[in-house]
Amino acid sequence: MTAEEVRSLDRAHVLHSWSAQDLIDPLPIAGAEGSYFWDYSGKRYLDFSSQLVNVNIGYQHPKVVAAIQEQAARLTTIQPSFANDARSQAARLIAEVAPNGLDTVFFTNGGAEAIENAVRMARLHTGRGKVLAAYRSYHGATAGAITLTGDPRRWASEPSAPGVVHFWGPYLYRSAFHAEDEEQERDRALQHLRDTLMVEGPHTVAAILLETVVGTNGILVPPDGYLQGVREICDEHGILLIADEVMAGFGRCGEWFAVDRWGVTPDLITFAKGVNSGYVPLGGVVLSDAVRASFATTPYPGGLTYSGHPLACASAVASIQAFHEEGIVGHARRLGEEVIGPGLAKLATRHASVGEVRGLGVFWAIELVRDRATREPLVPFNAGGEAAAPMVAVAAACKERGLWPMTNMNRVHVVPPCTTRRDEAEEGLAILDQALEVADRFVVG
Amino acid sequence: MTAEEVRSLDRAHVLHSWSAQDLIDPLPIAGAEGSYFWDYSGKRYLDFSSQLVNVNIGYQHPKVVAAIQEQAARLTTIQPSFANDARSQAARLIAEVAPNGLDTVFFTNGGAEAIENAVRMARLHTGRGKVLAAYRSYHGATAGAITLTGDPRRWASEPSAPGVVHFWGPYLYRSAFHAEDEEQERDRALQHLRDTLMVEGPHTVAAILLETVVGTNGILVPPDGYLQGVREICDEHGILLIADEVMAGFGRCGEWFAVDRWGVTPDLITFAKGVNSGYVPLGGVVLSDAVRASFATTPYPGGLTYSGHPLACASAVASIQAFHEEGIVGHARRLGEEVIGPGLAKLATRHASVGEVRGLGVFWAIELVRDRATREPLVPFNAGGEAAAPMVAVAAACKERGLWPMTNMNRVHVVPPCTTRRDEAEEGLAILDQALEVADRFVVG
Ligand SMILES: Cc1ncc(COP(=O)(O)O)c(C=O)c1O
Ligand SMILES: Cc1ncc(COP(=O)(O)O)c(C=O)c1O
Repeated sequence: MTAEEVRSLDRAHVLHSWSAQDLIDPLPIAGAEGSYFWDYSGKRYLDFSSQLVNVNIGYQHPKVVAAIQEQAARLTTIQPSFANDARSQAARLIAEVAPNGLDTVFFTNGGAEAIENAVRMARLHTGRGKVLAAYRSYHGATAGAITLTGDPRRWASEPSAPGVVHFWGPYLYRSAFHAEDEEQERDRALQHLRDTLMVEGPHTVAAILLETVVGTNGILVPPDGYLQGVREICDEHGILLIADEVMAGFGRCGEWFAVDRWGVTPDLITFAKGVNSGYVPLGGVVLSDAVRASFATTPYPGGLTYSGHPLACASAVASIQAFHEEGIVGHARRLGEEVIGPGLAKLATRHASVGEVRGLGVFWAIELVRDRATREPLVPFNAGGEAAAPMVAVAAACKERGLWPMTNMNRVHVVPPCTTRRDEAEEGLAILDQALEVADRFVVG
Repeated sequence: MTAEEVRSLDRAHVLHSWSAQDLIDPLPIAGAEGSYFWDYSGKRYLDFSSQLVNVNIGYQHPKVVAAIQEQAARLTTIQPSFANDARSQAARLIAEVAPNGLDTVFFTNGGAEAIENAVRMARLHTGRGKVLAAYRSYHGATAGAITLTGDPRRWASEPSAPGVVHFWGPYLYRSAFHAEDEEQERDRALQHLRDTLMVEGPHTVAAILLETVVGTNGILVPPDGYLQGVREICDEHGILLIADEVMAGFGRCGEWFAVDRWGVTPDLITFAKGVNSGYVPLGGVVLSDAVRASFATTPYPGGLTYSGHPLACASAVASIQAFHEEGIVGHARRLGEEVIGPGLAKLATRHASVGEVRGLGVFWAIELVRDRATREPLVPFNAGGEAAAPMVAVAAACKERGLWPMTNMNRVHVVPPCTTRRDEAEEGLAILDQALEVADRFVVG
């Protein structure tokens, strides 16, 4: 097919997510390899987005491609109630890299379904109805997951499912607590969570759900001690801690799971994306032994046709093995510490539009502002249309130069594959340096 | 891996859906081809279940396997906002076989997500909040889909999301309306729907959702004229008709879509399973041009990371093309009319336990009873444990003889792949004939 055929059939027959169909012009992509993808004109893009922050292992990793081809030849699909070697193996490999005491995996097709099931498990395990979730979060777009979501994508899907309460998490740069340093932010955020529980009634709360490191809503890295504090609060009240690692897990934070960075053990972890880089749709929940025990002699009342899909599981097996063999998690950590972190710090000194850079591993944000003193964002919260033009211009400046960026509200997220080479990361940073000149033009005073 | 390794890793690390984990012993499956799958001992099973009624094209169809391998080599994944040849092509092929005026496809990973999105579209298109759904239905296990579900699988996930009202559909054998023939059942079911709308306020209702032919809850084929009647009621009140064809579509009913049997055009069709036989997780919604127009200049506020996944779409393209080339839809219709239907009718005459057989295409149910006069089911509604033993015994009798059946409550569902050969279907019916002797033992008087 030519680009024109791809495009015209797309325009005639495909509904695109989160988009006004007649106002978009989706770029046909012809191929991809490693850290790059390209369009039909042969124009190559260095990928600083990992698509939707899922291609952690890079494009078309030969071991994962081969595993898909072999499993396809052997057995594409089998229903969840049978046992299957690819599924058994994938579950073992995931349990192995999960924190101690989380030994069981429930597989889904993606992140939203993982959240739906984790929350169901927590409610049934505790016998309580409510779940606390954070503002500035994204958990997916099914009815349960969108209710838990704390960003504008929820609004159109209200009224929401019952039993969800939102609280504020730590975010020093725009502190909900008027804090002035990380320690104060941590202590006040924990106090806010305790206060919220007090007025909600802690015995009515099944779980606290949070993204270990908040992704789409700004790469918000929690201050040291925050997650430990949340864990203690949970333990005090018999509340389960659910860590949503759909985006933060599998190398993204330079750890297998982001919780490893702080040595915190949740009761449930949700995953998707990086588990197999989305080569085949896959997600799931890792359960603590205690939660699993709740479904030992009482049925677990949830499921989906493709739970533990052999082809998806085979790709996860190959991907996790390649992560081990090629030291991909360590590479991502070092890339963050030695290249991306220092590189972004340098950009911050060179560009008046950079309000803050933050992140770890291959999970970074540049927060763009009109004014460093007031921290007024480069574009308003949830801006669309004309109001979003400055960010569109920054993105366009990247694309022109062969870098595919991820932007969200007033931020550029720097989220390349975990396998990105140092020189590739440097190449991307150099393009960002140029593109930020566009942002600088909007700085006032 | 040996069967024992597969089993022991499964027991150690996999949580199975809808099951008490310590009370199950999942059978490791080694391979599959055509209409058969086999375990590690080499025991082969003729499949009358199509796994979860999804392997419509049979196992390991060479054209679909090859398409997966080729697409894997080329481009496994790309995010939804780009255009992609496999996605464009899959959308075109689906729109082509969908009823006229349904030209746009929104892709998901499976059935539940399809339902979630169809309902969101209907609410936004109409600006109304409520959805009517049927008792004796299954729509998936995410918060929205399970709320719409009208079977016991919903109970553990309550309290439900707001805005759903359940009504009774036609089911002459156990009529909610004390009807005595199909025509009466149709008229009274439509009257019941009209009455329900009257008391709910038709202007508050966004959509009526139903399985075109009810699947898991009993292969309930609507009487001629029922769907037309629902369509008219919808039109009268500006209500959208959503046909859930996750199970009934793509050849299962001997039609591309089950609605084709009655020439009814819904506003939205949900699909999954048979679209690519689940070789790669895939589902979606087909939208009418009018619903699509609601998201032309206003964004559609929903999405998922793997919407329009290239590998999944490539497998759908190959599967739909093979359906065309090999006349699979027509084969399924004739298999129902000429082999399965007559064969089951004969079983009904030979076994006192058979209360009714019903179905079409490769979508049939045998309803087992203790007493033909009272129609008392062989096992009570939603029976588990000891109470379900008679059905477990019937299933065991099939498995011993090399037939893998699908049972649900007091029913055996006869749902082989659409590609099942006549002699294979006859072989399966002969085994069923023997297994039903077990059921006959429980018949009273
Ligand atoms: C943290 C987090 N949770 C859940 C999801 C939902 O995952 P999916 O899009 O696969 O449903 C996402 C998607 O971006 C996510 O970032
Ligand atoms: C009619 C119907 N709708 C929806 C679903 C849910 O599909 P999934 O299991 O892929 O989420 C099913 C599953 O069996 C179904 O039969």
